[in-house]
Amino acid sequence: MENKSNRQVLLAKRPDGMPGNENFEIRESQFPGIKDDEILTKNLYVSVDPYMRGRMTDTGGSPYSFGLHELITGRTIGEVLESRSPLFSKGDYVIGMMGWEEYSAVNAGDVEKLDPDMAPLSAYLGVIGMTGLTAYFGLLDVAKAEKGETVVVSAAAGAVGNVAGQIAGLKGCRVVGIAGSDEKIKMLKHELSFDDAINYKTTSDLAGAIRKACPRGVDVYFDNVGGEISDAVLSNLNRNARIAVCGQISLYNLEETPTGPRVQPVLLARSATMEGFMVGNYTDKYHEARQQLARWLKDGKLVSREHIVEGFEHITDAFIGLFTGDNTGKQVVKL
Amino acid sequence: MENKSNRQVLLAKRPDGMPGNENFEIRESQFPGIKDDEILTKNLYVSVDPYMRGRMTDTGGSPYSFGLHELITGRTIGEVLESRSPLFSKGDYVIGMMGWEEYSAVNAGDVEKLDPDMAPLSAYLGVIGMTGLTAYFGLLDVAKAEKGETVVVSAAAGAVGNVAGQIAGLKGCRVVGIAGSDEKIKMLKHELSFDDAINYKTTSDLAGAIRKACPRGVDVYFDNVGGEISDAVLSNLNRNARIAVCGQISLYNLEETPTGPRVQPVLLARSATMEGFMVGNYTDKYHEARQQLARWLKDGKLVSREHIVEGFEHITDAFIGLFTGDNTGKQVVKL
Repeated sequence: MENKSNRQVLLAKRPDGMPGNENFEIRESQFPGIKDDEILTKNLYVSVDPYMRGRMTDTGGSPYSFGLHELITGRTIGEVLESRSPLFSKGDYVIGMMGWEEYSAVNAGDVEKLDPDMAPLSAYLGVIGMTGLTAYFGLLDVAKAEKGETVVVSAAAGAVGNVAGQIAGLKGCRVVGIAGSDEKIKMLKHELSFDDAINYKTTSDLAGAIRKACPRGVDVYFDNVGGEISDAVLSNLNRNARIAVCGQISLYNLEETPTGPRVQPVLLARSATMEGFMVGNYTDKYHEARQQLARWLKDGKLVSREHIVEGFEHITDAFIGLFTGDNTGKQVVKL
Repeated sequence: MENKSNRQVLLAKRPDGMPGNENFEIRESQFPGIKDDEILTKNLYVSVDPYMRGRMTDTGGSPYSFGLHELITGRTIGEVLESRSPLFSKGDYVIGMMGWEEYSAVNAGDVEKLDPDMAPLSAYLGVIGMTGLTAYFGLLDVAKAEKGETVVVSAAAGAVGNVAGQIAGLKGCRVVGIAGSDEKIKMLKHELSFDDAINYKTTSDLAGAIRKACPRGVDVYFDNVGGEISDAVLSNLNRNARIAVCGQISLYNLEETPTGPRVQPVLLARSATMEGFMVGNYTDKYHEARQQLARWLKDGKLVSREHIVEGFEHITDAFIGLFTGDNTGKQVVKL
């Protein structure tokens, strides 16, 4: 054990609205020691994800909420420095909920071993990790997208959105992405084979632009953002359309309950379904889905888009950037 | 054929907001003659239903919209006065889309024969008709209510609502109804075996009242009304809850797009599903469902609640009354 410290990011203050650096504090903690059945990891990549904003709100003491002045936990990839478990050896790569810290002592049962030859390590946080699985189950299990249907994806250049759109393309759907910059639009159309893409920031009539891009209407809407973008998509729904509600990033930082046009009359008129989901609902199918994603990745059918920020000190900026549209693809911090 | 006239109710003017008698006109038409393969019916019962309000709006010339100065059509029960079809004989009872008129000439292929011994004729418009089928498919196919779950029904004393609640009870669910008068509440609890019922008009905290009536939360919401009543139910949803959107009667007469709290964040947080449906989506299962409803009715397990208004001249009042909460059970006009 070297005699050094362990930097950690703690939740300093719960955000009201948009999170800023004032909501976080860095603590120099003691270098962790491990007990039997634990391993010590040097963390290599940490994941910053929109859902973590929800965990920063106090939900009445539920374990889902991060504690004040406690470590922010999340999906993390580490290298095993020391193991007191028969499951892992020094040098193994593992993934688990270690969090925003340089070193972690974790129970060996709470992490999984990674194969660095199957895919680049960071892909385990992205296209073949929870991000890819979220896209996979949302598109195929929740929205049940079928060949020949038209699929619209919001935040299409984001971590989950770009994978959802790519999978829809692989399944033979017409795929239309909505994103917030011309650079993202170009990437969607030319690198990720979206059939069309719309920059909602430069479009004065978004509903009309969607109608034009979806001449046969919208069968599936993979919704990552909510708000007015979703209102525009909903006005183009086909009969029996399915909406997978994966995220509502446009609403996460609002301080009042967001309001908008009621959706029930639309769902009623089109016999449409809107379903909220979390990747954790599908744990029993993770293995099969991950195999499929890894195969597509290996065969070059799925492109891994990552936005890698380097340096422990940039974790909080990388997180905050999720809400200002900074990232294209999966936002990952390399320590 | 007697030499007499045929009174018909026509759509005189499309309603803006709440419909009134000024939207209708009565025409004394010629007594209808029939051609080959047609039958002549004397209409005995006409159905007035909330969905007809939607058909009074101009939806851009779609055949779904009633034409101006044309007959209002809808489910009707008639007695065959004359038949030029081998399918029916004088004296048979039939059901079809004849509409708000005293006599109809209809194609024999467009009506079905009724068995007056299986159930009272009017029940074919109610508990074993489209009303009962709507309740049946909405509760069991859309919302997939299961034994032991808690089911909330809005407009619970209405035509579809009371049957949905009764079926939920037969399936072993805890059933809570929401309605708008103490008389309706009493009926739900004491005649239709709802486990609990809430008068939304006299409750200052509807969400709190629902929480109290549903100590294990809400698994299924059978929604007939929409608006603020639905907002209150949604704040009590359990994880994996299902919402069957059957009607939105509180919104049908609004002149502007109704707004309210966005539902996507709730669906997301609870992994809940909201699905709009129409009974017509389930035509291939009508026969089986109708058999089940008729068996329950015959066995006394299902109570047929009807609100029968007498007289051709009261059809329009009976229809308008649907939106002011006049009816308890299925609103039917006996001619």
